[in-house]
Amino acid sequence: MTVYDPDNVFAKILRGEIPAAKVYEDNDILVFMDVMPQGEGHTLVVPKAPSRNLLDADPETVAVLFKAVQRVARAARAAFSADGVFVSQFNETASGQTVFHLHVHIIPRFEGVPLQRHASGAFADAAVLAEHAGRIRAALDADTQGA
Amino acid sequence: MTVYDPDNVFAKILRGEIPAAKVYEDNDILVFMDVMPQGEGHTLVVPKAPSRNLLDADPETVAVLFKAVQRVARAARAAFSADGVFVSQFNETASGQTVFHLHVHIIPRFEGVPLQRHASGAFADAAVLAEHAGRIRAALDADTQGA
Repeated sequence: MTVYDPDNVFAKILRGEIPAAKVYEDNDILVFMDVMPQGEGHTLVVPKAPSRNLLDADPETVAVLFKAVQRVARAARAAFSADGVFVSQFNETASGQTVFHLHVHIIPRFEGVPLQRHASGAFADAAVLAEHAGRIRAALDADTQGA
Repeated sequence: MTVYDPDNVFAKILRGEIPAAKVYEDNDILVFMDVMPQGEGHTLVVPKAPSRNLLDADPETVAVLFKAVQRVARAARAAFSADGVFVSQFNETASGQTVFHLHVHIIPRFEGVPLQRHASGAFADAAVLAEHAGRIRAALDADTQGA
């Protein structure tokens, strides 16, 4: 396993050096929209603590991260009236990891709608992503279950 | 969302009513090999507490579950000298969920080897799965990091 590179794109987002359509932020995690969504409402949950992926993360970071993933998955489902939610996490290039800061994908799923290819090169419209982020944020605020 | 059905196949495995190639078990979780692997070493991590999927699980169950997922991902990578590890979790039929007891897929990945389709109908050989389970168990025992 290689080391953590602090110049990866999610580290830059965490430091505010590049923008993102933010859904939620606290001391431990940042939630924002994927700029190359595989489906409507494709959201990323990222811990602030640096790790390359799940394999080298602190176990307490993992616990906090996935509790947040659960809340965001529920909110994304509600925000888009989705039929289901797909959660995925890639470790190393061979698995499909392209940004080397631990992150979890949350993708609302709809009956009959296939996933789009990731990293297809098509960036989503920033205004649309900001609107989607707002919808998920509102659903998070409204979800008292597990709060 | 529909309710939890206690007669799902993973509940039956947890009750010992049907067999599985077990990797690890404690008071909170059971780890066993997927009978229709999408790749060599395809492992499932299941909490003992009943929930349909991530959307209705207790947050503390989620924390314990994913700490175990991390340990198993590391062990599966080591056991198969994999180049990467893919972690996925499906919620509801529209996302690909087929067994309605919360579970997480851990699939070792190898450069140039695509994933096989899940639920292709091909059951893996039980002796092979038992041998794979033993390999991952040995790697779990050897991994003191995060223990």
